[in-house]
Amino acid sequence: MTATLDATHDPALRSWVPGADGHADFPIQNLPFGVFAPPGEAAPRGGVAIGRHILDLAAALRAGLFEGALRDAAAAAATAPLNGFLALGAGPRRALRQRLSAILAAGSADQPRAAPCLHDAADCTLHLPARIGDYTDFYVGIHHATNVGRVFRPDNPLLPNYRHVPIGYHGRASSVRVSGTDVRRPRGQLKAPDAAAPRFAPCERLDYELELGVWVGPGNELGAPVPVSGAGAHIAGFCLLNDWSARDIQAWEYQPLGPFLAKSFGTTISAWVVTPEALAPFRMSQPPRPEGDPAPLPHLLDAADQAGGALDIALEVLILTPRMREQGLPPHRLARSGSRHMYWTVAQMLAHHTSNGCNLNPGDLLGTGTLSAPEAEGLGSLLESTQGGRVPVALPGGETRRFLEDGDEIILRARACRAGAAPIGFGECRARILPA
Amino acid sequence: MTATLDATHDPALRSWVPGADGHADFPIQNLPFGVFAPPGEAAPRGGVAIGRHILDLAAALRAGLFEGALRDAAAAAATAPLNGFLALGAGPRRALRQRLSAILAAGSADQPRAAPCLHDAADCTLHLPARIGDYTDFYVGIHHATNVGRVFRPDNPLLPNYRHVPIGYHGRASSVRVSGTDVRRPRGQLKAPDAAAPRFAPCERLDYELELGVWVGPGNELGAPVPVSGAGAHIAGFCLLNDWSARDIQAWEYQPLGPFLAKSFGTTISAWVVTPEALAPFRMSQPPRPEGDPAPLPHLLDAADQAGGALDIALEVLILTPRMREQGLPPHRLARSGSRHMYWTVAQMLAHHTSNGCNLNPGDLLGTGTLSAPEAEGLGSLLESTQGGRVPVALPGGETRRFLEDGDEIILRARACRAGAAPIGFGECRARILPA
Repeated sequence: MTATLDATHDPALRSWVPGADGHADFPIQNLPFGVFAPPGEAAPRGGVAIGRHILDLAAALRAGLFEGALRDAAAAAATAPLNGFLALGAGPRRALRQRLSAILAAGSADQPRAAPCLHDAADCTLHLPARIGDYTDFYVGIHHATNVGRVFRPDNPLLPNYRHVPIGYHGRASSVRVSGTDVRRPRGQLKAPDAAAPRFAPCERLDYELELGVWVGPGNELGAPVPVSGAGAHIAGFCLLNDWSARDIQAWEYQPLGPFLAKSFGTTISAWVVTPEALAPFRMSQPPRPEGDPAPLPHLLDAADQAGGALDIALEVLILTPRMREQGLPPHRLARSGSRHMYWTVAQMLAHHTSNGCNLNPGDLLGTGTLSAPEAEGLGSLLESTQGGRVPVALPGGETRRFLEDGDEIILRARACRAGAAPIGFGECRARILPA
Repeated sequence: MTATLDATHDPALRSWVPGADGHADFPIQNLPFGVFAPPGEAAPRGGVAIGRHILDLAAALRAGLFEGALRDAAAAAATAPLNGFLALGAGPRRALRQRLSAILAAGSADQPRAAPCLHDAADCTLHLPARIGDYTDFYVGIHHATNVGRVFRPDNPLLPNYRHVPIGYHGRASSVRVSGTDVRRPRGQLKAPDAAAPRFAPCERLDYELELGVWVGPGNELGAPVPVSGAGAHIAGFCLLNDWSARDIQAWEYQPLGPFLAKSFGTTISAWVVTPEALAPFRMSQPPRPEGDPAPLPHLLDAADQAGGALDIALEVLILTPRMREQGLPPHRLARSGSRHMYWTVAQMLAHHTSNGCNLNPGDLLGTGTLSAPEAEGLGSLLESTQGGRVPVALPGGETRRFLEDGDEIILRARACRAGAAPIGFGECRARILPA
């Protein structure tokens, strides 16, 4: 996992697009890809976020801003859904990024042709960037796994396989929705521990989970595992992911085959594919395992991945309740964590996923699992921060929450920030709970 | 779930296609849809199995065999993958079936135009009928669940939720392959109970699972559950499904989120979509639950579904080993079971799946889970018939098996057979194990 820096990463680089310089998420050093529809137009098409604007790639193509092989890459990135673009891999993606950076840089001779291709993002509708084939959710946040395990097994919170296996399971692809789409509270079978039988009712223990999402780029053939050292070539980008969870449905249904209806009612992701290139300045070494933990098996171990395959991205969860909205209060931060709390790297997750020969396809989505930090302010779900609903969380304006109520809005944000690099973000992953 | 019989079901109906009458799987009363490529042609297209032949629907359209609304339905069924056809639902599907029956019936005036549209099935390549969006595997074979549970919990084999919840989990869609595609033995983390640590090695406990598959037709919107009474309208057909299972990988990985790499290396399905219309004569009432079992919750209970929503389909598993092949021995039957051993009906599975608002799409695939019969000859996996690998199964020619060896071929077959109806089958679900 080598992180190649080039002129596109220069923190001194400025853009002619108003508001792009210093934008919290989308300065010119980011340039994430996504799918949007301009105001009054129904057909989604591909674009690039730049500050508060979106560059319409179809329009930019028509304006003659791309030539040669770049035309093909730009045409793929202009076409919704972006599966074809994700499939292209790192070479064309990096070349397109370099060209986009040149087009949008302050002083670019392309400004007159590119400026008419910009839309105000606030006026546009964002869509899922790709057609998701399979969605797999991992469980690599070790503090989350420990916290959740403690609820069930106080003496032995982590199961014996956890430190050997990047635990994951198949999720539901059809119900993944883009940020901004409301989520309906699910009904399901609920059974209190002392009840004789379950009942069918609206979920009473609705929760969020703070995760990173990973977009798969080029796939692998069935029967052809991808080694850790080659995993980076199959990763097209990253997003934020809220793995909504119905804790009461989950507790009753999950034995012996795992979570099903507790999760499949909805998953929210942020709209923009933040590329590995944009995140190159924010790579770090995988934090050393705690004393006494086993080393990963050889097929999950790669020196370069250990040295530079982890990511240093700060993450936060915020809530905005109906009452806070009425009172004009801003969203309240519930937790602050980061991708450094992954026990396995993304390359290890992908290598494990394919180690049995399982094939991945462009547009498949991986979730990391909840990324909690060890501190009390770093808990990435209410299950953890309320200790299973026992200790309510205090909100501004005198409210409390044990689990989510109708009208509550959950907002995930990310920020990659390092000395010597321009900070970038992911855009919001935001959704509101509708009544059952 | 009303099973409407019409002229297409008449057991006296004969076809002019040579070999169709009395064909074990595909007499004129079946008419399943599928995707194939004729010899020498790469492009897959839709067809209908009739005896040892396949009617090429694109050719039949060009021959002018369909008019009016039937043209649209036939065009959808001619187009690979069949997702668009599956989405059409029961009305167009039933009308097309009636027209196909008339075209292929003995004495049909259409014979001169239809005969040139037939291909010898033995010369054709079969493909997956549809692009599978999400694949969900259930666990509704109560004898299987009991047998497997007994291995882990001798005193209490069935978990408390089993009789209340149609247990299911998300499977891997990308690795589902059509009958005839070899399956490579997976590698994975294996840990013997007394070993200090896992090792990464080829699976040593490779198994099959005998299941029915269900093709989803028209989908439902996210947030809009489908009641049991309306579930039939969302089911487009049935197939056989072999849920290959790596028991050693599964035992080590499955806690707490369920099976993952133990299953995702491959799933084999039969090629033909056997329609609900073809299976109408083989509906039966759901067998009464054992004394003392709870009644399903109201949202899973529908009188018509209980009265006629179950299926009476005989199932069998056969094995052909390399040595048997050398010795010229025929496949050996390992087990004989049937769909009557489902604890929940397909409509209950689908209603449960959507009860939290989860959306299904045309081309989604559901598996029933292993359908074992209560008798010793009815066990649908080696895990059961060898009691977890302890008691080897004897094969012809002096061989035995605890689990599958390289070169072993597993064949699933189905047959629906009832007094007063023409028996029909599904075609084979067959695949051979390649070395790791």
